[in-house]
Amino acid sequence: MTAKFASRKENQTETTKVKVGNTVFGGSEVVIVAGPCAVESYEQMQEVVTTLQTLGIGCVRGGIFKPRTSPYSFQGLNQEGFEILDAIRRETGLAIISEVMSVEQLEQAITHFDCFQVGSRNMQNFELLKALGKTGKPVLLKRGLAATIEEFLFAAEYILAEGNPNVILCERGIRSFDPMTRNVLDLAAVALLKELTHLPVIVDPSHATGKRSLILPTSRAAIAVGADGIIIEAHPQPERSVSDAAQALSLTELSTLVAQVEPIALAVGRSLARQANAFNKTKSASSHQ
Amino acid sequence: MTAKFASRKENQTETTKVKVGNTVFGGSEVVIVAGPCAVESYEQMQEVVTTLQTLGIGCVRGGIFKPRTSPYSFQGLNQEGFEILDAIRRETGLAIISEVMSVEQLEQAITHFDCFQVGSRNMQNFELLKALGKTGKPVLLKRGLAATIEEFLFAAEYILAEGNPNVILCERGIRSFDPMTRNVLDLAAVALLKELTHLPVIVDPSHATGKRSLILPTSRAAIAVGADGIIIEAHPQPERSVSDAAQALSLTELSTLVAQVEPIALAVGRSLARQANAFNKTKSASSHQ
Amino acid sequence: MTAKFASRKENQTETTKVKVGNTVFGGSEVVIVAGPCAVESYEQMQEVVTTLQTLGIGCVRGGIFKPRTSPYSFQGLNQEGFEILDAIRRETGLAIISEVMSVEQLEQAITHFDCFQVGSRNMQNFELLKALGKTGKPVLLKRGLAATIEEFLFAAEYILAEGNPNVILCERGIRSFDPMTRNVLDLAAVALLKELTHLPVIVDPSHATGKRSLILPTSRAAIAVGADGIIIEAHPQPERSVSDAAQALSLTELSTLVAQVEPIALAVGRSLARQANAFNKTKSASSHQ
Amino acid sequence: MTAKFASRKENQTETTKVKVGNTVFGGSEVVIVAGPCAVESYEQMQEVVTTLQTLGIGCVRGGIFKPRTSPYSFQGLNQEGFEILDAIRRETGLAIISEVMSVEQLEQAITHFDCFQVGSRNMQNFELLKALGKTGKPVLLKRGLAATIEEFLFAAEYILAEGNPNVILCERGIRSFDPMTRNVLDLAAVALLKELTHLPVIVDPSHATGKRSLILPTSRAAIAVGADGIIIEAHPQPERSVSDAAQALSLTELSTLVAQVEPIALAVGRSLARQANAFNKTKSASSHQ
Repeated sequence: MTAKFASRKENQTETTKVKVGNTVFGGSEVVIVAGPCAVESYEQMQEVVTTLQTLGIGCVRGGIFKPRTSPYSFQGLNQEGFEILDAIRRETGLAIISEVMSVEQLEQAITHFDCFQVGSRNMQNFELLKALGKTGKPVLLKRGLAATIEEFLFAAEYILAEGNPNVILCERGIRSFDPMTRNVLDLAAVALLKELTHLPVIVDPSHATGKRSLILPTSRAAIAVGADGIIIEAHPQPERSVSDAAQALSLTELSTLVAQVEPIALAVGRSLARQANAFNKTKSASSHQ
Repeated sequence: MTAKFASRKENQTETTKVKVGNTVFGGSEVVIVAGPCAVESYEQMQEVVTTLQTLGIGCVRGGIFKPRTSPYSFQGLNQEGFEILDAIRRETGLAIISEVMSVEQLEQAITHFDCFQVGSRNMQNFELLKALGKTGKPVLLKRGLAATIEEFLFAAEYILAEGNPNVILCERGIRSFDPMTRNVLDLAAVALLKELTHLPVIVDPSHATGKRSLILPTSRAAIAVGADGIIIEAHPQPERSVSDAAQALSLTELSTLVAQVEPIALAVGRSLARQANAFNKTKSASSHQ
Repeated sequence: MTAKFASRKENQTETTKVKVGNTVFGGSEVVIVAGPCAVESYEQMQEVVTTLQTLGIGCVRGGIFKPRTSPYSFQGLNQEGFEILDAIRRETGLAIISEVMSVEQLEQAITHFDCFQVGSRNMQNFELLKALGKTGKPVLLKRGLAATIEEFLFAAEYILAEGNPNVILCERGIRSFDPMTRNVLDLAAVALLKELTHLPVIVDPSHATGKRSLILPTSRAAIAVGADGIIIEAHPQPERSVSDAAQALSLTELSTLVAQVEPIALAVGRSLARQANAFNKTKSASSHQ
Repeated sequence: MTAKFASRKENQTETTKVKVGNTVFGGSEVVIVAGPCAVESYEQMQEVVTTLQTLGIGCVRGGIFKPRTSPYSFQGLNQEGFEILDAIRRETGLAIISEVMSVEQLEQAITHFDCFQVGSRNMQNFELLKALGKTGKPVLLKRGLAATIEEFLFAAEYILAEGNPNVILCERGIRSFDPMTRNVLDLAAVALLKELTHLPVIVDPSHATGKRSLILPTSRAAIAVGADGIIIEAHPQPERSVSDAAQALSLTELSTLVAQVEPIALAVGRSLARQANAFNKTKSASSHQ
């Protein structure tokens, strides 16, 4: 089986550029997306985006619909979160990347999110994929925990076949046997995807490793292998994060990461995407570094 | 983490009995469910259920909403299939077990299906699980391809926590490295689940092995390990099946399976569930064996 | 690739009978092997074999060369163990199945062991396999933790190709992602092996599950799926076992296991192998049950 | 469990330097090792090392004892290969890294090899590890296909505990479910190992991916993640390689790899190890590029 729209050879050879707000995924510039696992409050988000602006990052992540193993874990702010995200977008111009888990959530979020994230658990939620295909808006599609590359590409194909070309693929680790890391980050898959598809491919080192100390080296490796970007969990006070505390970077650590990733981007003939307007705000935000 | 409602110890020690039509899952009798992967036509279903009745089987499976890796594969008859299933149920009294992949499909199917199957790809489709919890109707929840036992039990918990106690768990193979079988059937997980939860647990040897010749021995093993039932893909002409042809049994092979499984059930102190009314129809159906 | 000597089709259709002492693997009778993980003392072994004789079991397992993850864990009695095993064999007539990890150990053990076990870590220790092939004596070859069926059969082929037809295959669980069980017991692989090869195939539920409560149900399932036997860890005082304490059965539990497995063997048209002379000793040993 | 000698914290904080010929593993310089899967002829090896010298590479790999799944596949030149390797070493001064699979092979190879490779199948061949510990010579220990990080470190511990500190660890891919790549390269494990142990850690992208086009990007990623080196399969005519043809680089591709890896090494504050004497031979060897 070969995907019709997703395949690099059959359809197009150049990498598709997907624009989320002012940020372009799939161009010569490497993109960094960052933000907390879950939106917790306006203050939390405000603190995060101040740092993002300082760093020239144009997209913030943060979930308000949270897929959790247990029904008794925090499930996200839900509708309440829309107001926070709207305010953040209005005040900063940053684009919002956030997860939806059902068609109903998609309908609610359609004007609030700039890019819809599909989590690994929903990679083959085909009804959701079809609905996302009909919106025409950018989709960040994460690889399933045990999804083959073929299945991953066909999941994207469900969106593309509905006429929506704005799909960004995201490798986020696959399930394996070693208890020392949360998942196994499959960076060879990123290189393989770049061969097989024209869609932009990014990497999520935070969920892949689940361990703060591993995020920086694997971020460097992701850019070195050819990824078009990375998506990083960052929190003003990681130890107080309502979820995924063990893997969230502090905002200072995020700044270090950006500094370390940049020379790798240059070493592979690319550069980091930097939102020009971000630098205007450097002074007021500098206290956060 | 321990599930509140699903756990055997915290909540109840006796196995929950889930009634689907006239068939009881979780009692002393071992249940066999059978039917085609996909509903293709009235004639196909009619031929299948005639054999099921001869064998005393009270539940027929058959999908009309089909989750397929590729958007270009047959996606099921959808609404068209309701009429066929309605006719089958009306004419035979058999209960219908069929998959739903979204809340919208669930709403459409609510009066047509007797038990809603949640496929492995949707085991953590939490919005769907919550909606199923609200219906109060029986749910057959399949284990995800890379789901731990803990995740499986918490997926059930999403349904139970909404007040619906009618959940049947189904082990259907996990993803592993050997290309010779489709998945790895994890029968120790069945024994473990029987310890950890009071919910009935059945096994799907067809999807687990993906290989016709392995279904009969693994069905015997499933009953021997303590499963409360098995669910088998069977088709009047397996080689013409629109999907999963390599793993569908012919109706003759299904009869052989029932004959071989019965002594195992007796050896573990149980018996096969047999619908009494089924035997009344033996004569007219006997030509199908 | 197809194995030349190991394949059922190319070479022979009947299951090979491998005789270890007076016990035949691969005949119509299902074989039970039992014994401690490690030989600890004469008294320990004497207590074990008294129960084995009562149960009609003709082969005892027990390691004196122990492959351990850490060099600081107990490595076995080594040469000291030969005397104990020699005494046990002389006094009871039971056959000894024990592991060797190198050609040097094989040379030392050649007159002391009746069947050489190759552990999962050494399944592809090709120099050891070739040396075992030259001895002509029975070999119990365990599947590697991540070995495909093809690799398993070719490992056996290394022994067979040297002219030694006495190979017994043993499924003992493969490595997977769930922390709740030690490994995943792959019983479909047993059914598949019975198709592909004429060699006898047995199952090790103790190492596969690593959990005492799962050994009995998976033993039943192993026989139901078509295995030619099972090999069980049993210890007079499991809680005092120097290794694998969590998975060793007590001698009373072993007797229960035999009683539960027997009806399954009958249900699949076989019976349990029982050493006739064993029953002569029933009276003196009965206190151990 | 924590390894006594292998652990970074308990024992030493600085990375151990392991010297193989004139090449130092574990220093600030990143090491590249290259060579064919199997030694086939003097002419083949001569052609390879001429390129290696041009590139400043000081260690050549090439097997004469080959672990092969099937006993009917090419098993290596064995003793015949010693003469070729001796001549190569004498003429070029390059150090020889080559695999041994048993104590007997180790004894034969002791004066011919500068570094003994232990393949993934033998990672827990404890008798071999102990014997290697007694030699005191450098050992390149590859991670087993399904080995946890803990098991990997304890395998090294078997060598270290015998008094041999010269162990280089090598991540070479773990077994997983996707048929599109041979194994899954686990680069987060490299970062984790660098935290946990003071031993040098290198990466084998050739065996990990099994696909020529993926070797260059994953080599870049390996250096970016913090590996102390990489080991690459290269062959004068990859399509004629007697084994692993699909993953061997041509000598021209190897030169490209070195050129692409160097800027990554610089980006992480390191440089490539270059044998000074190698450049003296550049002129005579330049025709090979």
